[in-house]
Amino acid sequence: MNLSRRKFLTKSAVGVTALGSIPAIVSSCVSPNSKETKDKYSILTKGDTIVFQGDSITDAGREREKELSNNPGSFGSGYAFLAASSMLNSLPEKELTIYNRGISGNKVYQLADRWQKDCLDLKPNLLSILIGVNDYWHFRDGHYDGTVEIYENDLRKLIQRTIKEFPSVNLVICEPYYVLNTSVVDESWVAPMKEFQTAAHKIAKEFGTIWVPFQKVFEEAVKHAPATYWTHDGVHPAMPGAQLMAEAWLRTVE
Amino acid sequence: MNLSRRKFLTKSAVGVTALGSIPAIVSSCVSPNSKETKDKYSILTKGDTIVFQGDSITDAGREREKELSNNPGSFGSGYAFLAASSMLNSLPEKELTIYNRGISGNKVYQLADRWQKDCLDLKPNLLSILIGVNDYWHFRDGHYDGTVEIYENDLRKLIQRTIKEFPSVNLVICEPYYVLNTSVVDESWVAPMKEFQTAAHKIAKEFGTIWVPFQKVFEEAVKHAPATYWTHDGVHPAMPGAQLMAEAWLRTVE
Repeated sequence: MNLSRRKFLTKSAVGVTALGSIPAIVSSCVSPNSKETKDKYSILTKGDTIVFQGDSITDAGREREKELSNNPGSFGSGYAFLAASSMLNSLPEKELTIYNRGISGNKVYQLADRWQKDCLDLKPNLLSILIGVNDYWHFRDGHYDGTVEIYENDLRKLIQRTIKEFPSVNLVICEPYYVLNTSVVDESWVAPMKEFQTAAHKIAKEFGTIWVPFQKVFEEAVKHAPATYWTHDGVHPAMPGAQLMAEAWLRTVE
Repeated sequence: MNLSRRKFLTKSAVGVTALGSIPAIVSSCVSPNSKETKDKYSILTKGDTIVFQGDSITDAGREREKELSNNPGSFGSGYAFLAASSMLNSLPEKELTIYNRGISGNKVYQLADRWQKDCLDLKPNLLSILIGVNDYWHFRDGHYDGTVEIYENDLRKLIQRTIKEFPSVNLVICEPYYVLNTSVVDESWVAPMKEFQTAAHKIAKEFGTIWVPFQKVFEEAVKHAPATYWTHDGVHPAMPGAQLMAEAWLRTVE
Protein backbone atom coordinates (compact mmCIF):
# COMPACT_ATOMS: atom_id res chain seq x y z
CA MET A 1 0.00 0.00 0.00
CA ASN A 2 1.58 3.23 -1.14
CA LEU A 3 1.12 5.96 1.43
CA SER A 4 3.87 8.18 0.09
CA ARG A 5 1.59 10.79 -1.45
CA ARG A 6 -0.69 10.98 1.55
CA LYS A 7 0.21 13.39 4.25
CA PHE A 8 0.24 12.36 7.85
CA LEU A 9 -1.02 15.03 10.21
CA THR A 10 -1.27 13.65 13.69
CA LYS A 11 -1.60 17.01 15.34
CA SER A 12 -4.88 18.85 14.93
CA ALA A 13 -3.02 21.96 13.85
CA VAL A 14 -3.75 23.08 10.32
CA GLY A 15 -1.34 24.65 7.86
CA VAL A 16 -0.63 28.34 8.02
CA THR A 17 0.62 29.30 4.61
CA ALA A 18 -1.26 32.04 2.82
CA LEU A 19 -4.88 31.17 2.20
CA GLY A 20 -5.69 29.73 -1.19
CA SER A 21 -8.06 32.58 -1.86
CA ILE A 22 -5.41 35.28 -1.74
CA PRO A 23 -6.50 37.19 -4.82
CA ALA A 24 -3.39 37.03 -6.97
CA ILE A 25 -5.19 38.19 -10.09
CA VAL A 26 -7.12 40.96 -8.38
CA SER A 27 -4.02 42.31 -6.67
CA SER A 28 -1.95 42.04 -9.83
CA CYS A 29 -4.21 44.44 -11.70
CA VAL A 30 -4.59 47.09 -9.01
CA SER A 31 -2.15 49.37 -7.19
CA PRO A 32 -1.63 49.78 -3.45
CA ASN A 33 -3.17 52.88 -1.95
CA SER A 34 -3.50 54.58 1.42
CA LYS A 35 -6.34 52.34 2.53
CA GLU A 36 -3.80 49.91 3.98
CA THR A 37 -3.75 51.75 7.28
CA LYS A 38 -7.51 51.88 7.72
CA ASP A 39 -9.72 49.50 9.62
CA LYS A 40 -11.20 46.76 7.52
CA TYR A 41 -14.67 47.58 6.26
CA SER A 42 -14.70 50.86 8.14
CA ILE A 43 -17.81 51.96 6.23
CA LEU A 44 -19.76 49.17 7.93
CA THR A 45 -21.28 49.83 11.34
CA LYS A 46 -22.52 47.29 13.87
CA GLY A 47 -25.98 46.08 12.92
CA ASP A 48 -25.76 47.24 9.30
CA THR A 49 -27.86 45.69 6.55
CA ILE A 50 -26.29 44.92 3.17
CA VAL A 51 -28.31 44.21 0.02
CA PHE A 52 -26.99 42.67 -3.21
CA GLN A 53 -29.12 43.55 -6.22
CA GLY A 54 -28.90 42.54 -9.85
CA ASP A 55 -29.73 39.93 -12.48
CA SER A 56 -28.87 36.23 -12.89
CA ILE A 57 -25.21 36.81 -12.06
CA THR A 58 -26.29 37.96 -8.61
CA ASP A 59 -29.29 35.59 -8.32
CA ALA A 60 -27.06 32.54 -8.91
CA GLY A 61 -29.83 30.01 -8.31
CA ARG A 62 -31.02 31.32 -4.93
CA GLU A 63 -34.39 30.16 -3.56
CA ARG A 64 -36.91 32.99 -3.96
CA GLU A 65 -39.57 31.87 -1.50
CA LYS A 66 -38.12 32.51 1.94
CA GLU A 67 -35.44 35.05 0.89
CA LEU A 68 -33.77 34.89 4.29
CA SER A 69 -30.78 36.98 5.31
CA ASN A 70 -27.42 35.28 5.97
CA ASN A 71 -28.84 31.99 4.70
CA PRO A 72 -26.94 29.78 2.22
CA GLY A 73 -30.02 28.66 0.27
CA SER A 74 -31.29 32.22 -0.02
CA PHE A 75 -27.95 33.28 -1.52
CA GLY A 76 -27.46 30.75 -4.31
CA SER A 77 -23.99 29.91 -5.58
CA GLY A 78 -22.44 33.10 -6.87
CA TYR A 79 -20.27 36.07 -6.02
CA ALA A 80 -22.84 37.40 -3.53
CA PHE A 81 -22.68 34.17 -1.49
CA LEU A 82 -18.90 34.17 -1.62
CA ALA A 83 -18.53 37.84 -0.67
CA ALA A 84 -21.21 37.74 2.02
CA SER A 85 -19.88 34.53 3.59
CA SER A 86 -16.44 36.10 3.77
CA MET A 87 -17.75 39.28 5.45
CA LEU A 88 -19.94 37.37 7.90
CA ASN A 89 -17.02 35.14 8.82
CA SER A 90 -14.44 37.86 9.28
CA LEU A 91 -16.68 40.44 10.96
CA PRO A 92 -18.86 38.60 13.50
CA GLU A 93 -18.73 41.59 15.82
CA LYS A 94 -20.55 43.75 13.24
CA GLU A 95 -23.66 41.55 13.40
CA LEU A 96 -24.40 42.15 9.73
CA THR A 97 -27.67 41.27 8.03
CA ILE A 98 -27.07 40.47 4.36
CA TYR A 99 -29.63 39.81 1.62
CA ASN A 100 -29.33 38.65 -1.97
CA ARG A 101 -32.23 39.99 -4.05
CA GLY A 102 -30.89 39.52 -7.58
CA ILE A 103 -33.36 38.04 -10.10
CA SER A 104 -32.39 36.31 -13.34
CA GLY A 105 -33.12 38.23 -16.52
CA ASN A 106 -33.57 41.59 -14.84
CA LYS A 107 -32.88 44.89 -16.56
CA VAL A 108 -32.86 48.23 -14.77
CA TYR A 109 -36.58 48.91 -15.20
CA GLN A 110 -37.34 45.55 -13.58
CA LEU A 111 -35.27 46.50 -10.54
CA ALA A 112 -37.36 49.68 -10.34
CA ASP A 113 -40.60 47.66 -10.45
CA ARG A 114 -39.63 45.74 -7.31
CA TRP A 115 -37.48 48.38 -5.58
CA GLN A 116 -39.84 49.02 -2.66
CA LYS A 117 -40.06 45.34 -1.64
CA ASP A 118 -36.58 44.21 -2.64
CA CYS A 119 -34.54 47.20 -1.56
CA LEU A 120 -36.17 50.04 0.36
CA ASP A 121 -38.18 47.81 2.71
CA LEU A 122 -34.91 46.13 3.72
CA LYS A 123 -33.48 49.49 4.90
CA PRO A 124 -30.01 48.97 3.46
CA ASN A 125 -26.93 50.65 4.91
CA LEU A 126 -24.92 49.33 2.00
CA LEU A 127 -26.47 48.58 -1.38
CA SER A 128 -24.61 46.86 -4.21
CA ILE A 129 -26.03 46.86 -7.75
CA LEU A 130 -24.79 44.85 -10.74
CA ILE A 131 -27.11 45.47 -13.68
CA GLY A 132 -26.82 46.16 -17.38
CA VAL A 133 -25.81 43.10 -19.36
CA ASN A 134 -29.44 42.15 -20.05
CA ASP A 135 -30.24 45.75 -21.00
CA TYR A 136 -27.88 45.13 -23.90
CA TRP A 137 -28.24 41.36 -24.44
CA HIS A 138 -32.04 41.31 -24.60
CA PHE A 139 -31.98 44.32 -26.99
CA ARG A 140 -29.44 42.50 -29.14
CA ASP A 141 -31.65 39.39 -29.20
CA GLY A 142 -34.71 41.44 -30.18
CA HIS A 143 -36.56 40.87 -26.89
CA TYR A 144 -36.25 44.41 -25.56
CA ASP A 145 -36.27 47.86 -27.11
CA GLY A 146 -34.39 49.78 -24.40
CA THR A 147 -31.34 51.91 -25.22
CA VAL A 148 -28.25 52.90 -23.28
CA GLU A 149 -29.92 56.29 -22.61
CA ILE A 150 -32.88 54.52 -21.00
CA TYR A 151 -30.44 52.40 -18.97
CA GLU A 152 -28.58 55.46 -17.74
CA ASN A 153 -31.72 57.41 -16.89
CA ASP A 154 -33.40 54.47 -15.17
CA LEU A 155 -30.28 53.74 -13.12
CA ARG A 156 -30.04 57.41 -12.12
CA LYS A 157 -33.68 57.43 -11.01
CA LEU A 158 -33.12 54.26 -9.00
CA ILE A 159 -30.18 55.81 -7.17
CA GLN A 160 -32.04 59.09 -6.59
CA ARG A 161 -35.03 57.19 -5.20
CA THR A 162 -32.75 55.24 -2.85
CA ILE A 163 -30.83 58.28 -1.62
CA LYS A 164 -34.05 60.22 -1.07
CA GLU A 165 -35.17 57.59 1.44
CA PHE A 166 -31.73 56.74 2.84
CA PRO A 167 -29.44 59.78 2.48
CA SER A 168 -26.48 58.11 4.14
CA VAL A 169 -26.65 54.73 2.36
CA ASN A 170 -23.32 53.43 1.05
CA LEU A 171 -23.73 52.66 -2.63
CA VAL A 172 -21.71 50.20 -4.69
CA ILE A 173 -22.15 50.12 -8.46
CA CYS A 174 -20.57 47.11 -10.14
CA GLU A 175 -19.42 47.37 -13.73
CA PRO A 176 -21.48 45.24 -16.15
CA TYR A 177 -18.91 43.12 -17.99
CA TYR A 178 -18.45 40.83 -20.97
CA VAL A 179 -15.72 38.27 -21.68
CA LEU A 180 -14.62 37.60 -25.26
CA ASN A 181 -13.77 34.16 -26.73
CA THR A 182 -16.65 32.46 -24.93
CA SER A 183 -19.74 30.61 -26.16
CA VAL A 184 -21.90 33.72 -26.47
CA VAL A 185 -19.79 36.88 -26.44
CA ASP A 186 -17.89 37.97 -29.56
CA GLU A 187 -16.29 41.20 -30.81
CA SER A 188 -19.66 42.65 -31.78
CA TRP A 189 -20.42 43.02 -28.07
CA VAL A 190 -17.49 45.32 -27.34
CA ALA A 191 -18.62 48.71 -28.65
CA PRO A 192 -22.20 48.58 -27.31
CA MET A 193 -21.16 47.11 -23.95
CA LYS A 194 -18.56 49.84 -23.54
CA GLU A 195 -21.42 52.35 -23.83
CA PHE A 196 -23.29 50.64 -20.99
CA GLN A 197 -20.12 50.52 -18.91
CA THR A 198 -19.51 54.22 -19.53
CA ALA A 199 -23.10 55.00 -18.50
CA ALA A 200 -22.78 52.96 -15.29
CA HIS A 201 -19.45 54.59 -14.45
CA LYS A 202 -20.95 58.03 -15.12
CA ILE A 203 -23.72 57.36 -12.59
CA ALA A 204 -21.16 56.03 -10.09
CA LYS A 205 -19.13 59.24 -10.36
CA GLU A 206 -22.23 61.43 -10.32
CA PHE A 207 -23.32 60.05 -6.96
CA GLY A 208 -19.89 59.30 -5.56
CA THR A 209 -20.51 55.58 -5.22
CA ILE A 210 -17.97 52.83 -4.84
CA TRP A 211 -17.17 51.40 -8.29
CA VAL A 212 -16.19 47.75 -8.81
CA PRO A 213 -14.22 47.45 -12.09
CA PHE A 214 -15.22 43.93 -13.13
CA GLN A 215 -14.19 44.41 -16.79
CA LYS A 216 -10.59 45.12 -15.81
CA VAL A 217 -10.56 42.16 -13.44
CA PHE A 218 -11.78 39.70 -16.08
CA GLU A 219 -9.34 41.13 -18.64
CA GLU A 220 -6.52 40.37 -16.22
CA ALA A 221 -7.95 36.90 -15.48
CA VAL A 222 -7.89 35.81 -19.15
CA LYS A 223 -4.12 36.30 -19.13
CA HIS A 224 -3.95 33.41 -16.63
CA ALA A 225 -6.45 30.90 -18.07
CA PRO A 226 -8.77 30.65 -21.10
CA ALA A 227 -11.82 32.91 -20.99
CA THR A 228 -14.15 29.93 -20.70
CA TYR A 229 -12.38 28.88 -17.50
CA TRP A 230 -13.77 32.03 -15.85
CA THR A 231 -17.13 32.17 -17.64
CA HIS A 232 -18.47 29.69 -20.16
CA ASP A 233 -20.81 32.06 -21.98
CA GLY A 234 -18.93 35.29 -21.32
CA VAL A 235 -21.57 36.60 -18.90
CA HIS A 236 -22.33 34.06 -16.17
CA PRO A 237 -19.27 33.24 -14.07
CA ALA A 238 -18.03 29.72 -13.52
CA MET A 239 -16.79 29.00 -9.99
CA PRO A 240 -13.34 30.61 -10.37
CA GLY A 241 -15.00 33.63 -11.99
CA ALA A 242 -17.48 33.97 -9.14
CA GLN A 243 -14.60 33.86 -6.65
CA LEU A 244 -12.73 36.45 -8.68
CA MET A 245 -15.75 38.76 -8.59
CA ALA A 246 -16.20 38.28 -4.84
CA GLU A 247 -12.57 39.12 -4.16
CA ALA A 248 -12.71 42.21 -6.35
CA TRP A 249 -15.93 43.30 -4.63
CA LEU A 250 -14.47 42.71 -1.14
CA ARG A 251 -11.26 44.61 -1.89
CA THR A 252 -13.16 47.51 -3.35
CA VAL A 253 -15.65 47.80 -0.52
CA GLU A 254 -13.05 47.10 2.14
CA MET B 1 -28.12 65.35 -0.32
CA ASN B 2 -25.64 63.88 2.13
CA LEU B 3 -22.80 62.16 0.34
CA SER B 4 -20.45 62.12 3.29
CA ARG B 5 -20.69 58.40 3.97
CA ARG B 6 -20.36 57.42 0.36
CA LYS B 7 -16.88 56.89 -0.93
CA PHE B 8 -15.74 58.41 -4.14
CA LEU B 9 -13.47 56.18 -6.17
CA THR B 10 -12.80 57.74 -9.54
CA LYS B 11 -9.93 55.44 -10.36
CA SER B 12 -10.70 51.87 -11.23
CA ALA B 13 -8.12 50.65 -8.73
CA VAL B 14 -9.53 48.67 -5.87
CA GLY B 15 -8.33 48.61 -2.28
CA VAL B 16 -5.41 46.47 -1.28
CA THR B 17 -5.79 45.91 2.44
CA ALA B 18 -5.90 42.33 3.61
CA LEU B 19 -8.78 40.43 2.11
CA GLY B 20 -11.88 40.17 4.27
CA SER B 21 -11.66 36.42 4.19
CA ILE B 22 -8.32 36.25 5.96
CA PRO B 23 -9.20 33.50 8.43
CA ALA B 24 -8.65 35.22 11.76
CA ILE B 25 -10.42 32.54 13.75
CA VAL B 26 -8.78 29.64 11.94
CA SER B 27 -5.32 31.13 12.32
CA SER B 28 -5.93 32.02 15.96
CA CYS B 29 -6.48 28.40 16.92
CA VAL B 30 -3.59 26.87 15.03
CA SER B 31 0.20 27.29 15.21
CA PRO B 32 2.62 28.14 12.42
CA ASN B 33 4.59 25.21 11.06
CA SER B 34 7.21 24.54 8.43
CA LYS B 35 4.70 24.42 5.61
CA GLU B 36 5.17 28.15 5.15
CA THR B 37 8.08 27.59 2.81
CA LYS B 38 6.33 25.08 0.60
CA ASP B 39 4.48 25.73 -2.62
CA LYS B 40 0.77 26.23 -2.19
CA TYR B 41 -1.20 23.04 -2.69
CA SER B 42 1.92 21.09 -3.55
CA ILE B 43 -0.03 17.85 -3.27
CA LEU B 44 -2.12 18.88 -6.28
CA THR B 45 -0.81 18.12 -9.76
CA LYS B 46 -1.95 19.64 -13.04
CA GLY B 47 -5.13 17.98 -14.23
CA ASP B 48 -6.04 16.52 -10.84
CA THR B 49 -9.60 15.63 -9.90
CA ILE B 50 -10.93 16.49 -6.45
CA VAL B 51 -14.08 14.95 -4.95
CA PHE B 52 -16.00 16.25 -1.91
CA GLN B 53 -18.08 13.54 -0.27
CA GLY B 54 -20.44 13.63 2.67
CA ASP B 55 -23.94 14.38 3.90
CA SER B 56 -26.16 17.49 3.89
CA ILE B 57 -23.34 19.71 5.14
CA THR B 58 -21.45 18.91 1.95
CA ASP B 59 -24.54 18.65 -0.30
CA ALA B 60 -25.66 22.17 0.65
CA GLY B 61 -28.57 22.24 -1.78
CA ARG B 62 -26.66 21.25 -4.93
CA GLU B 63 -28.62 20.10 -8.00
CA ARG B 64 -28.31 16.32 -8.30
CA GLU B 65 -29.30 15.88 -11.94
CA LYS B 66 -26.34 17.15 -13.96
CA GLU B 67 -23.70 16.89 -11.22
CA LEU B 68 -21.19 18.86 -13.28
CA SER B 69 -17.64 19.59 -12.19
CA ASN B 70 -16.60 23.19 -11.44
CA ASN B 71 -20.22 24.31 -11.79
CA PRO B 72 -21.89 26.60 -9.23
CA GLY B 73 -25.31 24.93 -9.39
CA SER B 74 -23.76 21.49 -8.99
CA PHE B 75 -21.97 22.64 -5.84
CA GLY B 76 -24.78 24.18 -3.80
CA SER B 77 -24.06 26.81 -1.18
CA GLY B 78 -21.72 25.31 1.37
CA TYR B 79 -18.10 24.82 2.38
CA ALA B 80 -17.39 22.69 -0.71
CA PHE B 81 -18.47 25.53 -3.04
CA LEU B 82 -16.43 28.05 -1.05
CA ALA B 83 -13.30 25.89 -0.88
CA ALA B 84 -13.50 24.73 -4.50
CA SER B 85 -14.14 28.26 -5.83
CA SER B 86 -11.10 29.47 -3.94
CA MET B 87 -8.86 26.71 -5.32
CA LEU B 88 -10.12 27.13 -8.88
CA ASN B 89 -9.54 30.86 -8.67
CA SER B 90 -6.08 30.76 -7.18
CA LEU B 91 -4.76 27.77 -9.15
CA PRO B 92 -5.93 28.18 -12.77
CA GLU B 93 -2.67 26.62 -14.03
CA LYS B 94 -3.53 23.33 -12.30
CA GLU B 95 -6.65 22.86 -14.45
CA LEU B 96 -8.46 21.14 -11.60
CA THR B 97 -11.72 19.22 -12.01
CA ILE B 98 -13.75 19.39 -8.80
CA TYR B 99 -16.96 17.55 -7.92
CA ASN B 100 -19.35 17.80 -4.99
CA ARG B 101 -21.11 14.47 -4.41
CA GLY B 102 -22.44 14.93 -0.88
CA ILE B 103 -26.04 13.78 -0.31
CA SER B 104 -28.26 14.97 2.53
CA GLY B 105 -28.97 12.44 5.25
CA ASN B 106 -26.13 10.10 4.34
CA LYS B 107 -24.40 7.87 6.84
CA VAL B 108 -21.24 5.88 6.06
CA TYR B 109 -23.05 2.82 4.71
CA GLN B 110 -24.92 5.03 2.25
CA LEU B 111 -21.63 6.39 0.94
CA ALA B 112 -20.55 2.78 0.41
CA ASP B 113 -23.75 2.03 -1.54
CA ARG B 114 -22.93 4.71 -4.12
CA TRP B 115 -19.13 4.67 -3.93
CA GLN B 116 -18.55 3.26 -7.42
CA LYS B 117 -20.61 5.96 -9.17
CA ASP B 118 -19.96 8.87 -6.84
CA CYS B 119 -16.29 8.32 -6.08
CA LEU B 120 -14.34 5.61 -7.91
CA ASP B 121 -15.77 6.39 -11.36
CA LEU B 122 -14.60 9.99 -10.95
CA LYS B 123 -10.98 8.81 -10.50
CA PRO B 124 -10.13 11.19 -7.67
CA ASN B 125 -6.58 12.36 -7.01
CA LEU B 126 -7.80 14.03 -3.83
CA LEU B 127 -10.84 12.79 -1.94
CA SER B 128 -12.37 14.66 1.00
CA ILE B 129 -14.91 12.94 3.26
CA LEU B 130 -17.06 14.55 5.96
CA ILE B 131 -19.38 11.92 7.41
CA GLY B 132 -20.59 10.84 10.82
CA VAL B 133 -23.07 13.26 12.33
CA ASN B 134 -26.05 11.35 10.89
CA ASP B 135 -24.54 8.05 12.05
CA TYR B 136 -25.13 9.45 15.55
CA TRP B 137 -28.10 11.77 15.00
CA HIS B 138 -30.31 9.21 13.23
CA PHE B 139 -29.46 6.62 15.91
CA ARG B 140 -30.35 9.14 18.60
CA ASP B 141 -33.66 9.86 16.87
CA GLY B 142 -34.48 6.14 16.61
CA HIS B 143 -34.23 6.02 12.80
CA TYR B 144 -31.04 3.98 12.61
CA ASP B 145 -29.51 1.18 14.64
CA GLY B 146 -25.83 1.66 13.73
CA THR B 147 -23.14 2.01 16.38
CA VAL B 148 -19.80 3.81 16.52
CA GLU B 149 -18.12 0.43 15.83
CA ILE B 150 -20.14 0.05 12.63
CA TYR B 151 -19.20 3.63 11.70
CA GLU B 152 -15.51 2.95 12.23
CA ASN B 153 -15.52 -0.36 10.37
CA ASP B 154 -17.56 0.99 7.47
CA LEU B 155 -15.31 4.04 7.14
CA ARG B 156 -12.22 1.81 7.20
CA LYS B 157 -13.68 -0.40 4.46
CA LEU B 158 -14.50 2.67 2.37
CA ILE B 159 -10.92 3.92 2.63
CA GLN B 160 -9.47 0.46 1.92
CA ARG B 161 -11.68 0.13 -1.15
CA THR B 162 -10.57 3.54 -2.40
CA ILE B 163 -6.86 2.92 -1.83
CA LYS B 164 -7.07 -0.49 -3.47
CA GLU B 165 -8.21 1.17 -6.71
CA PHE B 166 -6.17 4.37 -6.35
CA PRO B 167 -3.07 3.66 -4.24
CA SER B 168 -1.73 7.20 -4.52
CA VAL B 169 -4.97 9.09 -3.84
CA ASN B 170 -4.64 11.96 -1.37
CA LEU B 171 -7.21 11.45 1.36
CA VAL B 172 -8.78 14.11 3.57
CA ILE B 173 -10.95 13.06 6.50
CA CYS B 174 -12.93 15.91 8.06
CA GLU B 175 -13.91 15.72 11.70
CA PRO B 176 -17.67 15.33 12.24
CA TYR B 177 -18.59 18.17 14.61
CA TYR B 178 -21.36 19.47 16.86
CA VAL B 179 -21.91 22.95 18.26
CA LEU B 180 -23.54 23.40 21.67
CA ASN B 181 -26.10 26.09 22.59
CA THR B 182 -27.95 25.76 19.29
CA SER B 183 -31.51 24.74 18.40
CA VAL B 184 -30.76 21.01 18.24
CA VAL B 185 -27.46 20.20 19.94
CA ASP B 186 -27.22 20.03 23.74
CA GLU B 187 -24.79 18.54 26.29
CA SER B 188 -26.17 15.04 25.75
CA TRP B 189 -24.50 15.05 22.31
CA VAL B 190 -20.99 15.54 23.66
CA ALA B 191 -19.97 12.09 24.92
CA PRO B 192 -21.36 10.07 21.99
CA MET B 193 -20.12 12.55 19.36
CA LYS B 194 -16.65 12.44 20.90
CA GLU B 195 -16.68 8.68 20.26
CA PHE B 196 -17.45 9.24 16.58
CA GLN B 197 -14.74 11.90 16.38
CA THR B 198 -12.24 9.53 17.99
CA ALA B 199 -13.18 6.80 15.50
CA ALA B 200 -12.78 9.16 12.53
CA HIS B 201 -9.43 10.41 13.84
CA LYS B 202 -8.28 6.81 14.40
CA ILE B 203 -9.00 5.98 10.75
CA ALA B 204 -7.24 9.16 9.63
CA LYS B 205 -4.12 8.20 11.56
CA GLU B 206 -4.34 4.56 10.46
CA PHE B 207 -4.21 5.53 6.80
CA GLY B 208 -2.10 8.68 7.15
CA THR B 209 -4.77 10.97 5.76
CA ILE B 210 -5.03 14.71 6.12
CA TRP B 211 -7.27 15.53 9.12
CA VAL B 212 -9.43 18.67 9.26
CA PRO B 213 -10.16 19.49 12.92
CA PHE B 214 -13.60 21.10 12.55
CA GLN B 215 -14.53 20.66 16.24
CA LYS B 216 -11.59 22.78 17.36
CA VAL B 217 -12.37 25.42 14.75
CA PHE B 218 -16.01 25.79 15.85
CA GLU B 219 -14.98 25.84 19.50
CA GLU B 220 -12.74 28.78 18.71
CA ALA B 221 -15.47 30.46 16.66
CA VAL B 222 -17.99 30.48 19.51
CA LYS B 223 -15.59 32.67 21.47
CA HIS B 224 -16.18 35.37 18.84
CA ALA B 225 -19.96 35.17 18.27
CA PRO B 226 -22.90 33.13 19.60
CA ALA B 227 -23.02 29.51 18.48
CA THR B 228 -26.17 30.14 16.43
CA TYR B 229 -24.29 32.75 14.40
CA TRP B 230 -22.14 29.94 13.00
CA THR B 231 -24.78 27.21 12.87
CA HIS B 232 -28.44 27.52 13.78
CA ASP B 233 -29.05 23.88 14.66
CA GLY B 234 -25.51 22.99 15.73
CA VAL B 235 -24.88 20.81 12.66
CA HIS B 236 -25.65 22.69 9.43
CA PRO B 237 -23.46 25.78 9.04
CA ALA B 238 -24.87 29.22 8.44
CA MET B 239 -22.92 31.33 5.92
CA PRO B 240 -20.13 32.41 8.30
CA GLY B 241 -19.82 28.80 9.49
CA ALA B 242 -19.53 27.52 5.93
CA GLN B 243 -16.78 30.07 5.25
CA LEU B 244 -15.03 29.04 8.46
CA MET B 245 -15.10 25.39 7.36
CA ALA B 246 -13.81 26.25 3.88
CA GLU B 247 -10.91 28.23 5.30
CA ALA B 248 -10.00 25.46 7.74
CA TRP B 249 -10.19 22.90 4.92
CA LEU B 250 -8.04 25.04 2.60
CA ARG B 251 -5.37 25.68 5.22
CA THR B 252 -5.20 22.04 6.14
CA VAL B 253 -4.97 20.75 2.58
CA GLU B 254 -2.66 23.54 1.48
